[in-house]
Amino acid sequence: MAINIDLQRERQCATISSEDFAEWWAGGRAALQERRALDKLFEEDAALTDPQHTSLMSHKELYEYTLAKACKFLSKLRDWHAANAHTKSGGDSQQSAIATLYDFRMLLAGPLGTALFQQNFPLRLHFSMFLPALLGQCTEEQQREWFDRAWRMDGIIGTYAQTELGHGTFIRGLETRADYDAQSEEFILNTPTLSAYKWWPGSLGQTANMVIVMAQLYIKGKHHGLHPFLVRIRNAETHLPEPGVDVGEIGPKLGVHGVNNGFLGLKDVRIPRTQMLMKNAQVRPNGRFVKGPEPLLTYGTMVFVRVMIVRDVSFGLQQAATIATRYSAVRRQSPIAPDQPEPQILDHTTQQAKLFPQIAKGIFFRIAADVVWVMYQNVVKELDAGQRRNLPELHALSCCLKAYCSAEAEEGVEILRKSCGGHGYLSSSNFAQIYGAVTAACTYEGENTVLLLQTARFLVKQYVEGLKRRVLPHSVRYLRNATRPKCGKNIELRTLVRLLEFAATESIRTLYEHQRQQRKLLKSEQLVASKTGIRLTQVATLHARAFLARTALEETEKFCKHLKPVLADVLTQLAELFVLEMCLNSLAAILISHPLNARQVDQLQSRYEHLLATIRVNAVAVVDGFDFNDRVLGSTLGCYDGRVYERLMAEACKSPLNQEPVNSTFYTHLKPLMQGKL
Amino acid sequence: MAINIDLQRERQCATISSEDFAEWWAGGRAALQERRALDKLFEEDAALTDPQHTSLMSHKELYEYTLAKACKFLSKLRDWHAANAHTKSGGDSQQSAIATLYDFRMLLAGPLGTALFQQNFPLRLHFSMFLPALLGQCTEEQQREWFDRAWRMDGIIGTYAQTELGHGTFIRGLETRADYDAQSEEFILNTPTLSAYKWWPGSLGQTANMVIVMAQLYIKGKHHGLHPFLVRIRNAETHLPEPGVDVGEIGPKLGVHGVNNGFLGLKDVRIPRTQMLMKNAQVRPNGRFVKGPEPLLTYGTMVFVRVMIVRDVSFGLQQAATIATRYSAVRRQSPIAPDQPEPQILDHTTQQAKLFPQIAKGIFFRIAADVVWVMYQNVVKELDAGQRRNLPELHALSCCLKAYCSAEAEEGVEILRKSCGGHGYLSSSNFAQIYGAVTAACTYEGENTVLLLQTARFLVKQYVEGLKRRVLPHSVRYLRNATRPKCGKNIELRTLVRLLEFAATESIRTLYEHQRQQRKLLKSEQLVASKTGIRLTQVATLHARAFLARTALEETEKFCKHLKPVLADVLTQLAELFVLEMCLNSLAAILISHPLNARQVDQLQSRYEHLLATIRVNAVAVVDGFDFNDRVLGSTLGCYDGRVYERLMAEACKSPLNQEPVNSTFYTHLKPLMQGKL
Repeated sequence: MAINIDLQRERQCATISSEDFAEWWAGGRAALQERRALDKLFEEDAALTDPQHTSLMSHKELYEYTLAKACKFLSKLRDWHAANAHTKSGGDSQQSAIATLYDFRMLLAGPLGTALFQQNFPLRLHFSMFLPALLGQCTEEQQREWFDRAWRMDGIIGTYAQTELGHGTFIRGLETRADYDAQSEEFILNTPTLSAYKWWPGSLGQTANMVIVMAQLYIKGKHHGLHPFLVRIRNAETHLPEPGVDVGEIGPKLGVHGVNNGFLGLKDVRIPRTQMLMKNAQVRPNGRFVKGPEPLLTYGTMVFVRVMIVRDVSFGLQQAATIATRYSAVRRQSPIAPDQPEPQILDHTTQQAKLFPQIAKGIFFRIAADVVWVMYQNVVKELDAGQRRNLPELHALSCCLKAYCSAEAEEGVEILRKSCGGHGYLSSSNFAQIYGAVTAACTYEGENTVLLLQTARFLVKQYVEGLKRRVLPHSVRYLRNATRPKCGKNIELRTLVRLLEFAATESIRTLYEHQRQQRKLLKSEQLVASKTGIRLTQVATLHARAFLARTALEETEKFCKHLKPVLADVLTQLAELFVLEMCLNSLAAILISHPLNARQVDQLQSRYEHLLATIRVNAVAVVDGFDFNDRVLGSTLGCYDGRVYERLMAEACKSPLNQEPVNSTFYTHLKPLMQGKL
Repeated sequence: MAINIDLQRERQCATISSEDFAEWWAGGRAALQERRALDKLFEEDAALTDPQHTSLMSHKELYEYTLAKACKFLSKLRDWHAANAHTKSGGDSQQSAIATLYDFRMLLAGPLGTALFQQNFPLRLHFSMFLPALLGQCTEEQQREWFDRAWRMDGIIGTYAQTELGHGTFIRGLETRADYDAQSEEFILNTPTLSAYKWWPGSLGQTANMVIVMAQLYIKGKHHGLHPFLVRIRNAETHLPEPGVDVGEIGPKLGVHGVNNGFLGLKDVRIPRTQMLMKNAQVRPNGRFVKGPEPLLTYGTMVFVRVMIVRDVSFGLQQAATIATRYSAVRRQSPIAPDQPEPQILDHTTQQAKLFPQIAKGIFFRIAADVVWVMYQNVVKELDAGQRRNLPELHALSCCLKAYCSAEAEEGVEILRKSCGGHGYLSSSNFAQIYGAVTAACTYEGENTVLLLQTARFLVKQYVEGLKRRVLPHSVRYLRNATRPKCGKNIELRTLVRLLEFAATESIRTLYEHQRQQRKLLKSEQLVASKTGIRLTQVATLHARAFLARTALEETEKFCKHLKPVLADVLTQLAELFVLEMCLNSLAAILISHPLNARQVDQLQSRYEHLLATIRVNAVAVVDGFDFNDRVLGSTLGCYDGRVYERLMAEACKSPLNQEPVNSTFYTHLKPLMQGKL
């Protein structure tokens, strides 16, 4: 099929090669080619191709369709794995299992998983939570018993159940309990109230047959905290719920329709003592409770998950930006001058302002995630060596980045959707599904406001440490830098970053002073924290922006040393746009901390406009460089060939309503209504 | 059923009576009672009650279900109308038809229509566009022929088709053409290309059988502009598409699933000359084109529609705010102090900051719509008298309010959804449907960015008029007020409004100067407008905020004269919160125009926090006062009795997946996978 002529011209006029960009973005030629080969293998498989858009299906049809597809995919992946096992060490060591799980997680969240499962992968929880929990929380003996079978899915499809109908973020409030019965050496599990029902776990509804249940442990009526218990909920042979188990799904949602989220009630469900996962704490047969060392790695896991979320939401943003940018090159609307033809909407400055900052965020959010990922790996090594010094910084950083990036990505996806006008509102544009996935990330794994509050508490503490002239962790070192940034006639990029850091510092200082005042009025430290919650979230946001801006600047400088000059130029333009975007979004805070004059603000704005115009020529080449094939984008508006209108029409024609000339309701309702006979 | 105890206490502790609020909000006791009676009549009808949540249905099932329901509703409404016709003048005059259509529009967009059709009313376009277009654009003779039949739906179900697959906002670009054939005295209609296909009109897919098609008129090859043509697309008896008509639906969407949006291709479709709607221009039998007077009322209609949209989106915001506020009174989470029980989340300052500003917006957006509605009625009277002086102001105001309020409402609904954590993500919370309706309003009837640009051009023009010391229209009179607002120790509410107006004025001044600079560099005035697009949208936004703030202040003062003091107090608190919200959202612009010092900014923030705490006690009473019954909210989280967890579970249990103990995919896929046999 011919490529849309406007899109073709965009590609010809670009100063960079999108293939160069793709190579850099994928981490090198070999990685890019390997990924493309794997994608091709699966995506060209007719058994894994949707015959119709899933938005046409009923809730039940969608479940059955995606689950069947997931099973086919896993089966094919097993075969491929068996044939390609030489590439990974075949050992059964824990390290190798972790590496494989990590790879699988990346595969599912990456282009291939997205292309095949735009509604999310129905068995994801088995791999992303159940297996890692077995790895991380089983004793060696328990691992021998369960892990391999679970890995092979030999009679086991698992999930992880923590959240309850009435309890989310505050896990100490969970009500599900496990009472130890020393007589029978069993735990008796109960969800004593409706609000204690487990609620939300993926795959729990109709799919999983084993669950790791987080429950309050009681021994002889004494409470011993929250622990994980391995519970079979459905018979391996018949899949019927086990006695005492009340299980089902929680119904349709805004997005991620492929995930079979469920509820679980337990009534006197007995499991052997050995099915409490006992790596961190044990219950002896006689009922003695033995507390283990503080599970620092659990903290580590939360960090891991949040860094992954930053990657995931940046991925959604890249998808959406690709769709909207290509569409904007194809769509023509509203002449700039009355006597001229309608231009590509990509030529409108206001359209550029919707697209390019999102492209930049898609890039620099992921780069920030990569940087924090390296920090994470170092901290894990330190933890293994008993050193926990850098954990709080990492934790605070992962909290605010998860919160900030998911919120921005969510907003960005919607800006991009609306930039495509009405057509973006169609399911076939795929924006709705991307949005559904991205916005969910604002809530799960730590609700965003709660996470910002956690970061803010860390920041205030570090600020106080700074006042005491203590050495601060790397990412907050700027809190001790009281030098007011100097803005000359042309504000340098580094100075822009400093403006953000200085605004953050000043906000934290003001907050600290405000809290001191409040302490005189309020009874408790907790009340002070609660009353100043809004300001706390604001300083955490500023910190996230300052960190992201500095990271964009520094990483771009590093990358540019090895890139072709033209590509380095474009990356630098995008970094500058990104930093300016962060500054303009924090303008009030910057102005309060460091009064720029009107002329300087005007200059920032002009520079922003100028950058948009500069980036214009390479916009399509850059999004092409994300190297998403049409299946990954899943969009009538975003495909590589730009044949937008043909695809919109072709997709519409697939609707079952369009398969019959007259719908049955004409005879049953419409005609009687018109005849006054209803 | 017992009412949740926390919610009960909220109602007992409120200082205002929600019934007083409801009376004021509904416009008096009589209006409130009348509405409640009508709602009850329809909502208690079992034939109009959904047996299952529509999100469980397939796309086709949903169409058939909602259409059948719409027909039943119309039939019942006819009967009710016949029985209650004495309340309205029974005449068939145009004024009475307009009044009835307006009432019907209000009924559909109001509580009753929402309660019955959360997915939007499938035959809405017949009433909201087709009939008004017949009224407004037919000659008297044409009206006699068509209007009454159409009103009775006697063989006619209509819609209005303007937008094309490749053409939206810029209507001069439309490609559909009507060529006059003087020989046969017919028009020949064609959509010459794929991009010329009509695309989007509601009801067009499978429902409507007549369409008012906007097409470029050609007579002997000469172009005479865009005109409306009445085209039968489906046979009244068989409902089969007429020859040359290619019609179908455009497929699933992000929201408003009840609207059967469609496409329409026309190939040499002939209609009699008399089916061009000829009120504004005529084609004589011999092919002579007679241009009518400038259709000022068409402008008026656009204004009307946009004011209605402001009402609609504020309605969505009120719904969402009611759901989230009630849920926040019921939900308990995260102790403020470690030794205390989990508080109602309504007690967290950060939660209040998510809820209360949205409540205030829900109120003051609607009040602003009411004010502009009165302006509209006056302008229509003036237009009838040949006086068009106030049309541009009204047009500019309706543009920026539609754009600003829909964008804010969209964002607000999502803030409210996320404030309910994971449960807000469930379809049964109804946030997704509310969002789907509200966000659509950002795009239809004038895309928001395009509308802001229109307002901005008006503002710059008025600013220039102001420089010439001309008298400015009321809503922009502040542009001539160069007095810098004086901020004492306690900034008065009126001064806050002035701060906004002054910021808007200064921004327009800066923009004007910037455009003067740009004119030296750029070739054309249009290029200057295009290059300064971002700034233009910013000034229009500031103007909208200034207008909304002033309106909130002034209208509240008026209302308070007649309200009980406690209610007046609460309304004043909400108005102050609203104005502060507008200011804090424009803080950067305010600071640029009028450097407040850090202490003054801090004071604004403290006042905002203080107001949240003050409003807390009446939050539930206020949303109760919107007087939405449970059907209108359609939400497991928002019902009056607050039995959130029971309803969530009850709704989940209705899912077809939960009706069978084991899903069929277990046998076909899951078990084979577990046995390695897939």
